[in-house]
Amino acid sequence: MIQQIQGNVVLSSSLWVNVALAGLSALLFFYMGRDVRSSRARLIFGATIMISLVSISSYLGLLSGLTVGFVEMPVGHPLGGEAVLSQWGRYLTWAFSTPMILLALGLLANVDRSDLFVVIAADVGMCVTGLAAALVTSSYAMRWAFYGLSCAFFFVVLYALVAKWPADAVAAGTDDIFGTLRVLTVVLWLGYPIVWAVGVEGLALVSSVGLTSWAYSALDIGAKYLFAFLLLRYVAANESAIEAPGTTTAAGSTLSED
Amino acid sequence: MIQQIQGNVVLSSSLWVNVALAGLSALLFFYMGRDVRSSRARLIFGATIMISLVSISSYLGLLSGLTVGFVEMPVGHPLGGEAVLSQWGRYLTWAFSTPMILLALGLLANVDRSDLFVVIAADVGMCVTGLAAALVTSSYAMRWAFYGLSCAFFFVVLYALVAKWPADAVAAGTDDIFGTLRVLTVVLWLGYPIVWAVGVEGLALVSSVGLTSWAYSALDIGAKYLFAFLLLRYVAANESAIEAPGTTTAAGSTLSED
Amino acid sequence: MIQQIQGNVVLSSSLWVNVALAGLSALLFFYMGRDVRSSRARLIFGATIMISLVSISSYLGLLSGLTVGFVEMPVGHPLGGEAVLSQWGRYLTWAFSTPMILLALGLLANVDRSDLFVVIAADVGMCVTGLAAALVTSSYAMRWAFYGLSCAFFFVVLYALVAKWPADAVAAGTDDIFGTLRVLTVVLWLGYPIVWAVGVEGLALVSSVGLTSWAYSALDIGAKYLFAFLLLRYVAANESAIEAPGTTTAAGSTLSED
Repeated sequence: MIQQIQGNVVLSSSLWVNVALAGLSALLFFYMGRDVRSSRARLIFGATIMISLVSISSYLGLLSGLTVGFVEMPVGHPLGGEAVLSQWGRYLTWAFSTPMILLALGLLANVDRSDLFVVIAADVGMCVTGLAAALVTSSYAMRWAFYGLSCAFFFVVLYALVAKWPADAVAAGTDDIFGTLRVLTVVLWLGYPIVWAVGVEGLALVSSVGLTSWAYSALDIGAKYLFAFLLLRYVAANESAIEAPGTTTAAGSTLSED
Repeated sequence: MIQQIQGNVVLSSSLWVNVALAGLSALLFFYMGRDVRSSRARLIFGATIMISLVSISSYLGLLSGLTVGFVEMPVGHPLGGEAVLSQWGRYLTWAFSTPMILLALGLLANVDRSDLFVVIAADVGMCVTGLAAALVTSSYAMRWAFYGLSCAFFFVVLYALVAKWPADAVAAGTDDIFGTLRVLTVVLWLGYPIVWAVGVEGLALVSSVGLTSWAYSALDIGAKYLFAFLLLRYVAANESAIEAPGTTTAAGSTLSED
Repeated sequence: MIQQIQGNVVLSSSLWVNVALAGLSALLFFYMGRDVRSSRARLIFGATIMISLVSISSYLGLLSGLTVGFVEMPVGHPLGGEAVLSQWGRYLTWAFSTPMILLALGLLANVDRSDLFVVIAADVGMCVTGLAAALVTSSYAMRWAFYGLSCAFFFVVLYALVAKWPADAVAAGTDDIFGTLRVLTVVLWLGYPIVWAVGVEGLALVSSVGLTSWAYSALDIGAKYLFAFLLLRYVAANESAIEAPGTTTAAGSTLSED
């Protein structure tokens, strides 16, 4: 299996590029955060650096063959009966990396911690049911049932990002950068279920394992490293704004925020 | 394996009933929560809807054959040497759903967040050791050792529910509904280890895989959807009581609650 | 496999000793905590007792053969081509036990809860990448790549323990016991990657599975039960100091601590 990965240049390049970018971004972020002193800003740095570290782990897992496998597609699937190389480790590691993205966004917007917890729980549910959709081999309908369930969890996350957190970001005075990152996140995250649907694991409209992998890898580059860079550049330059959220609001609401 | 599940009417009906009820309850709860505005009440809705979504995932996992398997019982077990159909996915997904039940109960009683964390950690320990008990094939004694360990974790959860949280619920003014849900939870949760002990995986006093599955499914219906319905009906009707816990106590204690 | 474990006296004794000590320590800690009433002190007791309960689970998993396996070492490894008994369950269960150690230390030093969350996330990353390092069979370089990544996560944890939390402990008035436990933790935790590097899974300078196992078991005894005993003895005797952290600081900083 590892020979099949290493022998496929399109596939292996889609993985190594991410290992390199994740490693470089982690080092860059450590450097950018060297002078950050305030508590919440450091926390945002910590969560964001974790995104890159989890991403390296994820791609090393795929490259080493530990978290990939041949999955025989069920009857009804366009490639029914064929064994398709499934990068199931992606769905598994997203369960660790995407919560960090939501944590960073939630801290930026200074959302209620319990609210953040539920959104992160829905996000983990989305990743775990996505993993199930990738691994089910007994029935084509079951694959799409898990896909639909994963989208239901995704809807909870989207609802928070689009309808609930913007108001918190306004109150925290970070609505400018939050708005940018929210659009980036919503647009790119919508790409993942689309890639799944048209890629080898779904309708197989794109039947190349390498191209499907590159589609995910390109989304990861935007949704992880670009996202992280924009966020941390802002935080490093506006540390005082991050540190004192809601200072313009009444004292009562500041106390009740936590 | 999936043919064995689908060919067994008692078994497959025990699973499909829960998929249907979990799906309907999730939709009902979204509808019930449409007008809820306050932060803590929305959070209780979020955690509770998650219970139903995790439950659908769990039962789809069992139906698709992804999280079931034949486990050869060790020497000493009443079915020693036989391969028994184990629904190990149940124990795995309880590690995601039961924390949401405890979170909802803890929020209702407005318990200390750190206290809640430890109880949820014990609950996850209970589920993971229960999973180990189901999967051990090398020794009959080891199966019961994990069972006993799982019960030790369960004791920590029970202790919080019975001895500690009621006082918090009184302080929060939600002791009426909390008392009802606590009794429901304690009684039904005690059913799970009893079903394990008498079912096919334990003493095999009931040696039917289908009946054992129905026993778990019936407990799930009470402990999850009925529980959730009673909770959310109360929260939707008493939103103001949920929003302002401890308003009748002194200001000092309100500040120190968080 | 279970016969190989039970037939190897050095190996099986290294496991049973920990089951016994973890069980005894859990009972002792329940007894020591019987009169503890304050919230934070009880929470420290809860998290610490969890360390022992997870440890029992971990060692029962190894003894039952559930979480061990023969891993064929890749070309380049000193034992390349040979099947080595890997206790991969250790890395898996550390992902549950070490967060409890950090939680107890963090509560003792009264560190910021969000800070604690990131350090625990890094700690879980350390354990999961350690698990990957143990399981990779396709390439010797990949094993060390995961090892290096695990050390990068470890560095985040060490940084918090050595450079950040001591100041919080001083503010909380628990710097005396925190200093002792911090040295114990840092020194013993540094032992784990060293044992991995020189043991059968790394350079195989020590090629005995039993001795490698005893090295881990001895570290566990110090880093878990001794650690827990010293911590809880202090907490039980100094409950009032734990309960009122920062009372000597200004009221403003007390309010902002949470």
